[in-house]
Amino acid sequence: MSQPHTEKPYEKPQGERRGLVIINTGNGKGKTTAALGLLVRAQGRGLRTRLLQFIKHESANFGEHRSLKALNIPFAGLGDGFSWTSKDLDHSKELAQMGWKEAREAILSGDYDLLVLDEVTYPINWGWIDVQEVLETLKARPHMLHVVLTGRNAPQELVEYADTVTEMTPIKHAFDAGIPAQKGIEH
Amino acid sequence: MSQPHTEKPYEKPQGERRGLVIINTGNGKGKTTAALGLLVRAQGRGLRTRLLQFIKHESANFGEHRSLKALNIPFAGLGDGFSWTSKDLDHSKELAQMGWKEAREAILSGDYDLLVLDEVTYPINWGWIDVQEVLETLKARPHMLHVVLTGRNAPQELVEYADTVTEMTPIKHAFDAGIPAQKGIEH
Repeated sequence: MSQPHTEKPYEKPQGERRGLVIINTGNGKGKTTAALGLLVRAQGRGLRTRLLQFIKHESANFGEHRSLKALNIPFAGLGDGFSWTSKDLDHSKELAQMGWKEAREAILSGDYDLLVLDEVTYPINWGWIDVQEVLETLKARPHMLHVVLTGRNAPQELVEYADTVTEMTPIKHAFDAGIPAQKGIEH
Repeated sequence: MSQPHTEKPYEKPQGERRGLVIINTGNGKGKTTAALGLLVRAQGRGLRTRLLQFIKHESANFGEHRSLKALNIPFAGLGDGFSWTSKDLDHSKELAQMGWKEAREAILSGDYDLLVLDEVTYPINWGWIDVQEVLETLKARPHMLHVVLTGRNAPQELVEYADTVTEMTPIKHAFDAGIPAQKGIEH
């Protein structure tokens, strides 16, 4: 029951403003939704944004996609919606690599202020996208470009380079209690 | 470099669909932005949503508010934008209690499918809002209503009752490296 005035005073950092590399990782909820929230916030500020989703199928039309359309936030599903049950991993790999090519061009293009590479850690960790190439591309990005990367087990090289890294840790999850995924909440 | 097919198979839970209580807590980034992402996703699914912000000033117009307006997601700033430097804590306390009254009515009204009580843990932890009353209100909510609560140090009573609890843990933060908060990212 501490009162607010007992907290430590705010100290304004003196550094420069510049584009950030932000990573949302961990096994908990909120990695993608927090990135969606940043997109919405940034779009509201007039920033040029884009969402690139590495796992979701290009024809996926989840709740967020309908809202992103309404906000004129461009998005692309780069994957084939595959999972560990996918029968054709070669095709998934090819799509992920084409997706990375598109992401790389977007990062270097100068056309954006905020890019989200959603679930990009998976194809990196599976060895489909070269982590060193991702790192070099991030280092070569325009000065004011923010890039958000999401997914479990963010590679150490990217964590070391990133400005802000948050781990979403599950304390408990309705799914484990036997409640199925629900429209509008999970997708 | 584990391949996707090595992960454990998906098991579909057999429980019922119902409204969830979801808590985003911890000292890291993403508590509010993940709630914003859920709002956007839910709105895209046609759910009836509303954002109630307990700390932000009613006239605040951050990036998210402009986008929420564009999506027709109603929101209300219930606080006075106070912080630990606030000079008039009695006024802040009164606003928080009025805000809770409004939130309670919204929860029990049957008019919503998803409500976000953003930063509600602070006035609860300061003793301004009775945690037992919050708990009883959540228990009395309509069967299909989802309620998301955000803020640091979520009270144990609420964590125990909640369906899904995620702790956002800061691994590192640009702010600590001396980079100031930036429009479109932090607010």
